[in-house]
Amino acid sequence: MTAPDLLTVGEALVSLRSAGPLAAGGPLTMHLAGAESNVAVGVARLGHRAAWAGRVGADEFGEYVLRQLRAEGVAVDGVSRDPDRPTGLMFLERRTADLTRVQYHRAGSAGSALDVEDLRAPLTAGARMLHLTGITPALSDTARAATRWAAEAAAGAGIPVCLDVNHRARLWSRAAAREALTPLAGYASIVIASTDELDLVGDPGADESTVVAELFRRGVDTVLVKLGADGARAHARDGVRHTGALTVTAVDTVGAGDAFTAGYLSGWFDGLDLAGRLRRAATLGAFAVSSPGDWEGLPRRAELSLLDGHEAGSVIR
Amino acid sequence: MTAPDLLTVGEALVSLRSAGPLAAGGPLTMHLAGAESNVAVGVARLGHRAAWAGRVGADEFGEYVLRQLRAEGVAVDGVSRDPDRPTGLMFLERRTADLTRVQYHRAGSAGSALDVEDLRAPLTAGARMLHLTGITPALSDTARAATRWAAEAAAGAGIPVCLDVNHRARLWSRAAAREALTPLAGYASIVIASTDELDLVGDPGADESTVVAELFRRGVDTVLVKLGADGARAHARDGVRHTGALTVTAVDTVGAGDAFTAGYLSGWFDGLDLAGRLRRAATLGAFAVSSPGDWEGLPRRAELSLLDGHEAGSVIR
Amino acid sequence: MTAPDLLTVGEALVSLRSAGPLAAGGPLTMHLAGAESNVAVGVARLGHRAAWAGRVGADEFGEYVLRQLRAEGVAVDGVSRDPDRPTGLMFLERRTADLTRVQYHRAGSAGSALDVEDLRAPLTAGARMLHLTGITPALSDTARAATRWAAEAAAGAGIPVCLDVNHRARLWSRAAAREALTPLAGYASIVIASTDELDLVGDPGADESTVVAELFRRGVDTVLVKLGADGARAHARDGVRHTGALTVTAVDTVGAGDAFTAGYLSGWFDGLDLAGRLRRAATLGAFAVSSPGDWEGLPRRAELSLLDGHEAGSVIR
Amino acid sequence: MTAPDLLTVGEALVSLRSAGPLAAGGPLTMHLAGAESNVAVGVARLGHRAAWAGRVGADEFGEYVLRQLRAEGVAVDGVSRDPDRPTGLMFLERRTADLTRVQYHRAGSAGSALDVEDLRAPLTAGARMLHLTGITPALSDTARAATRWAAEAAAGAGIPVCLDVNHRARLWSRAAAREALTPLAGYASIVIASTDELDLVGDPGADESTVVAELFRRGVDTVLVKLGADGARAHARDGVRHTGALTVTAVDTVGAGDAFTAGYLSGWFDGLDLAGRLRRAATLGAFAVSSPGDWEGLPRRAELSLLDGHEAGSVIR
Amino acid sequence: MTAPDLLTVGEALVSLRSAGPLAAGGPLTMHLAGAESNVAVGVARLGHRAAWAGRVGADEFGEYVLRQLRAEGVAVDGVSRDPDRPTGLMFLERRTADLTRVQYHRAGSAGSALDVEDLRAPLTAGARMLHLTGITPALSDTARAATRWAAEAAAGAGIPVCLDVNHRARLWSRAAAREALTPLAGYASIVIASTDELDLVGDPGADESTVVAELFRRGVDTVLVKLGADGARAHARDGVRHTGALTVTAVDTVGAGDAFTAGYLSGWFDGLDLAGRLRRAATLGAFAVSSPGDWEGLPRRAELSLLDGHEAGSVIR
Amino acid sequence: MTAPDLLTVGEALVSLRSAGPLAAGGPLTMHLAGAESNVAVGVARLGHRAAWAGRVGADEFGEYVLRQLRAEGVAVDGVSRDPDRPTGLMFLERRTADLTRVQYHRAGSAGSALDVEDLRAPLTAGARMLHLTGITPALSDTARAATRWAAEAAAGAGIPVCLDVNHRARLWSRAAAREALTPLAGYASIVIASTDELDLVGDPGADESTVVAELFRRGVDTVLVKLGADGARAHARDGVRHTGALTVTAVDTVGAGDAFTAGYLSGWFDGLDLAGRLRRAATLGAFAVSSPGDWEGLPRRAELSLLDGHEAGSVIR
Repeated sequence: MTAPDLLTVGEALVSLRSAGPLAAGGPLTMHLAGAESNVAVGVARLGHRAAWAGRVGADEFGEYVLRQLRAEGVAVDGVSRDPDRPTGLMFLERRTADLTRVQYHRAGSAGSALDVEDLRAPLTAGARMLHLTGITPALSDTARAATRWAAEAAAGAGIPVCLDVNHRARLWSRAAAREALTPLAGYASIVIASTDELDLVGDPGADESTVVAELFRRGVDTVLVKLGADGARAHARDGVRHTGALTVTAVDTVGAGDAFTAGYLSGWFDGLDLAGRLRRAATLGAFAVSSPGDWEGLPRRAELSLLDGHEAGSVIR
Repeated sequence: MTAPDLLTVGEALVSLRSAGPLAAGGPLTMHLAGAESNVAVGVARLGHRAAWAGRVGADEFGEYVLRQLRAEGVAVDGVSRDPDRPTGLMFLERRTADLTRVQYHRAGSAGSALDVEDLRAPLTAGARMLHLTGITPALSDTARAATRWAAEAAAGAGIPVCLDVNHRARLWSRAAAREALTPLAGYASIVIASTDELDLVGDPGADESTVVAELFRRGVDTVLVKLGADGARAHARDGVRHTGALTVTAVDTVGAGDAFTAGYLSGWFDGLDLAGRLRRAATLGAFAVSSPGDWEGLPRRAELSLLDGHEAGSVIR
Repeated sequence: MTAPDLLTVGEALVSLRSAGPLAAGGPLTMHLAGAESNVAVGVARLGHRAAWAGRVGADEFGEYVLRQLRAEGVAVDGVSRDPDRPTGLMFLERRTADLTRVQYHRAGSAGSALDVEDLRAPLTAGARMLHLTGITPALSDTARAATRWAAEAAAGAGIPVCLDVNHRARLWSRAAAREALTPLAGYASIVIASTDELDLVGDPGADESTVVAELFRRGVDTVLVKLGADGARAHARDGVRHTGALTVTAVDTVGAGDAFTAGYLSGWFDGLDLAGRLRRAATLGAFAVSSPGDWEGLPRRAELSLLDGHEAGSVIR
Repeated sequence: MTAPDLLTVGEALVSLRSAGPLAAGGPLTMHLAGAESNVAVGVARLGHRAAWAGRVGADEFGEYVLRQLRAEGVAVDGVSRDPDRPTGLMFLERRTADLTRVQYHRAGSAGSALDVEDLRAPLTAGARMLHLTGITPALSDTARAATRWAAEAAAGAGIPVCLDVNHRARLWSRAAAREALTPLAGYASIVIASTDELDLVGDPGADESTVVAELFRRGVDTVLVKLGADGARAHARDGVRHTGALTVTAVDTVGAGDAFTAGYLSGWFDGLDLAGRLRRAATLGAFAVSSPGDWEGLPRRAELSLLDGHEAGSVIR
Repeated sequence: MTAPDLLTVGEALVSLRSAGPLAAGGPLTMHLAGAESNVAVGVARLGHRAAWAGRVGADEFGEYVLRQLRAEGVAVDGVSRDPDRPTGLMFLERRTADLTRVQYHRAGSAGSALDVEDLRAPLTAGARMLHLTGITPALSDTARAATRWAAEAAAGAGIPVCLDVNHRARLWSRAAAREALTPLAGYASIVIASTDELDLVGDPGADESTVVAELFRRGVDTVLVKLGADGARAHARDGVRHTGALTVTAVDTVGAGDAFTAGYLSGWFDGLDLAGRLRRAATLGAFAVSSPGDWEGLPRRAELSLLDGHEAGSVIR
Repeated sequence: MTAPDLLTVGEALVSLRSAGPLAAGGPLTMHLAGAESNVAVGVARLGHRAAWAGRVGADEFGEYVLRQLRAEGVAVDGVSRDPDRPTGLMFLERRTADLTRVQYHRAGSAGSALDVEDLRAPLTAGARMLHLTGITPALSDTARAATRWAAEAAAGAGIPVCLDVNHRARLWSRAAAREALTPLAGYASIVIASTDELDLVGDPGADESTVVAELFRRGVDTVLVKLGADGARAHARDGVRHTGALTVTAVDTVGAGDAFTAGYLSGWFDGLDLAGRLRRAATLGAFAVSSPGDWEGLPRRAELSLLDGHEAGSVIR
């Protein structure tokens, strides 16, 4: 197990998508889902070495998860198979043209039973960056402890940590999230959040600049604030930089944030400056929202410029 | 057969939908269609007791219609099976992105053979409201007589009548429609029409205020004028009220008017004031146009607020 | 309009097929159906010039029928478009693995309004053979008269007539069929029937040899008795010949009889002897039953030997 | 809530079916599953009044289950919605042409939390027969207690009980099953089992006649032993009767046993003698195995004779 | 082979379309493709006699191409079957909502082996117009020679030639295209180009008016400049005329240019003035972009006015 | 690149499958194909380390091939991307229930341009076994040379070689095949052939025992003769052993031979005796023929006993 560029840790799920209301009983299509694995795929598609660590069931869905990750070139040496718990599921229904609704079947899943022992080997193998999200600590006590341990171990080993707050309201309250995530952010070099998630790594109700200042004080280098269709704002120690989103036809916003993160980290691995990292982040976000699926439309390296200068309806022939 | 909140009467059809031009021969999907059954489903989804009465063939499509209505919780005790006539069909093709075209195969159908005897039992069972449309009297002489009888019987029994003008140009002329519908409107408490249908329950070419005034004079309480993307205008005895349409991404306008009616009647059953009834009507219309299918996307009660405050691309998780 | 080898006359329908029970509401696929058009397609695929004459609606389904016939190279110059009647429909459901059920929506169809005028031009153009079935006279009085006229006109013009009895129990009684078909058979050179249809062109209950003898007496040259999986028996003036069916995996028996007829007529156009005609008839029957669809699996000329010497599971590569 | 002919109690699940290996990630289709609801549907399709009682989640899958049951005319007044537990799921994959594999996600499901309170109202409403299976007691302690209570309450109220042993090896051991089911059988009038399940309501390893004799001694009237493709054997107090299975093309054996039970009970409701009940049981079994789906192919009353005298490939037209 | 109104010459391909990235491995749908055959279909749908000449493989895809052209009523008498080369393929993937990508497998195809001999018979049969595109000369030396010969032969026989520049950057450079197309344009009556293609029939970098003036000098009568969503500009000897594009919802821009050409030529066959020809061209373009497929959504004559006065979401019933 | 257990070399293709005749134009599904990659997948599924070496295009289909191989855990470090040639395609149509037909588009493909340089690195990395087939030398001169070189290099390095004759009649004649394959067999330890392929590694028309004796003389250890539904016969130096095929329902014979080989080699890697190797070979063959797809139904190690003792229609639950 050679050290990857990026190590991500979390729960990978099987997402079963319905094109209409679930209660109507239409067909479901199967997909790999999970914020951390999305980031790993995004980074791997661009040619970086990415690994994902976590726990999946010793069932058919666990096989499916592994097949998808391997297909995308994400290393899975560090994945545990849990013989006693099923792989987590989620159901995603397009309720109306504007509204997608998620139903989780992940309570008691293999992924939520993640513990410290699952992560020792992957962490020992090392990486240029460790990526964590605020979803994993919401899954269980052991998963929260494992996330904490991983952040600490990485920091101790000089591996920078990227933390995406990623609040899931169906999994825990904002108060519980804040209690777990604020200490976690102390180990991070990069913190990523949407505007309404920022105070989950700071004091309740604190404004953006206050939260950022405090994160800087605690050792964070960069704070990325995702603004949806308005792009993103990056707070670095030497100033603030904004990037707009690319103009594309949005068909599926799920996974857009993970794509943004993957683009940013890819730029970081390539040694780009902040502007370059943000540009790549915005590019991957544009691919994500203009393609169906959480990660299926992400670009390979040769495709990075595909959306440049093309308007809707373009044909390359 | 306990009395439902809403009794609707009409023809329920099997709608076979093609995603492209029919002549291209692609696959067809099967759906329940019919303005009156759409309203019954919309009302039943919100927890009211709804019944539909009419006639279907003793064929497989008749079975299908009954299975769909029962699935939605619409009472079908009052449905007759016609051993000699087929269940009516319609074919709906998406001809271009902007244009949907309907081809009816309902001439000689079981539903068009509706007669007074089919409606005696349902009317006797009673209801809090009877809903009729201007489609049924266009189907045949017996259907026209049955509609007239039902309106009269309901009025006689103190059951308020809701009439949606719903002009179908392929079934009859405006003159023929006016001749049948104007007397019918005299039995109604609520009359619903689009702007270009209003004079089918009044004098040819009469303007909105003239038609409304005359309807009030004849005993109508409320006149709802549907304005499409501009919402609707309600004329009540104590004034006029306008409601805007919710801002949603429109993907299928078929059934939007029926959804509007169902929302209005649901509000009426719940004892809401006019503003509340219109708000619910607009909400159901918004669900209808932002979902594929005539009625498949209508909300259950717990979903009524789903579209509030969400913009396109929202994900609930 | 040059004279084709084969002219067929009848009703072509749009067949909507369901893979399971219709009442379950699954998707439907669209197909061209009709015994006479099936024969025309079978003959055209083998490189003969075939024409089909009849009446279709001026609707989208009429367009579909014409598109399919043209695609198969069947001449449609002699087809009338009926502005007032719809193209006939049939619904075909796979009720169980063993049982297929048909529901017709052809009453009042354009095809059933066929009349003598529709056939004058096609008959005048001539052909080497005219093919008729016992379905057409069952459709309406005018269709019966038109069939009779066509047989008479062909016989008068020296064009041999092939008549397939093809009894449809849902369209008429055996007595009514016998009354119409027996005189028709008097114009035929070739009569085709299954064993239980034979006495529809003879006396009720008459046995095979009696019916055949009487047909010979009336001028028929060849009587083909279809025996299903047991092949077929041909009665010619100089003796009786049997052909077995090819051993294939049967997946869809609909259209097998029409394929048999097409093969026989193709052999006749090629000047094959009786044995050769029967062999080709059996070959086409084998293609029909081992392929889904009424005619979709029929062979082109270069494919005639494909099934020779191949067992189930063969791969040509 | 009027008393139905048949009351069944158990867990209804959403079954997600894959046409190939699950790990390959193909599309899934949604179906209603559950041995007891299968029996209810089979009985309702034949025109008897059937009710199903149990617990489903307050989620979209619970809605789906209710929609399907209502569509089939099964009364669901006695169904509880559990706000805290999800509706149970199962995944069914066609692993090879010969082998279907089931993966349950029903641990902690709403259905498995069934308790006595859920059944009081349905039992009080009464029925002509109560149907239970050996699956329900395997789900949880409360479900086992509820099943026991229902059997006892029915027996006390003079409602005959039908018990299908239905051993599910993935849910519990044979020893545990025997411990729960043997006392349950004491309340039953009808006991149904396959040959290898018989000793789960008797002594371990006891032979058929011994088990039957003991069941008779304990008050059971009829013991039905399912023999798969060899039909079934009925032990009644006045002798033993065998029925063969109908010869059909088997495409899906799932649900065949439930269909058999439904046919038997339908015959019982119709007052048929044992031979008649067995014939109907065999007929429903034949429909089940020759149609895809657990219950989707079951016949309505007018279809009961459809398979008589038809061989593979028959077409009704 | 009677003379058609329009003769087109080129390569017809089988286009395999994927709804998402090809590398993801989803299903592909089969379509007929080819700029010249698109124009032939568009013209034939409007009731003109159209013929297509070219070369397809003696393989199954060649059969498919012929079936599609015949279905659309395009004469294929002049098509050659090449026993040694496969029918050309192209793969079209919807890469993102805004971007479609084409991958050709046409090197060495039958169509690219087009030579002069293939065109002698079609040209001898005559036509009211010959349509060529700048794609054919890019396919091979023989195809370039054949195109040149056809233009020359037509001009010699008094058949006007229409040339659509249609530059395909993946097939050849702009310099190579200019070298071949500039002389070709000398035989044309009508030249069609997008703004960035204009100087491929003139001097490199020449502006529109210069190119047009030179084309007029060389004998061209009309130069049509396609402006995408901005409509088109027609240069005739007596002035310049602009037509706007119809306002429709664009779902597939592929084939829009060919539809425009077909509309223009149809107007020409109907003897319309320039304004009428441009209006029809714009109408066909609108159908093309608002329907999926290269040509599948093109109108029949009775449908020409369908888009007039309809806004998005219209339903004709 | 650590040494795998199995190294296979050849051409991997994208197979586009149609459920019916290609000329009918139905949808196509995408699959990985190639005899050698099939064997690699079969071995990898059982937990052995497998690698595949060859050349694919730098196109989307090349990406697809790599994604599929990686998903299955087959190492692809040794795969070259050819920037100038497309990935090879094949089309596989189910022509009738009994007959599958293949159409190759692999002439000039990247895979057929395989040369010695492509194989140096993979061979240098070593393996416990090298697997080659008689397809690769049929593709081109360079591919033939590369195959020869690989066999020689492996033999020189003490890596046993397995050669499957796998004659493809559409690619070359028997004489040409014999000329290339007979010398190749001299490097092999294991030779696999069907009965009609045996004399392609011996004298024309030589019988089985003669060919086997000569192969033994030339150093081959084991000759496996595939007998289809009759199983296989293994000639070893110490005698002949026969294995029957498992009784399963055959749905797709494509890939059965490759599955057999994979099973045999897996047994060899596990150190099983000849009987054990043949049993596993037969088991994998049974999975292959009873599942759709060339390799998709192959078992993982825990599934090896799934087909034991199960008859058609079994359900594991």
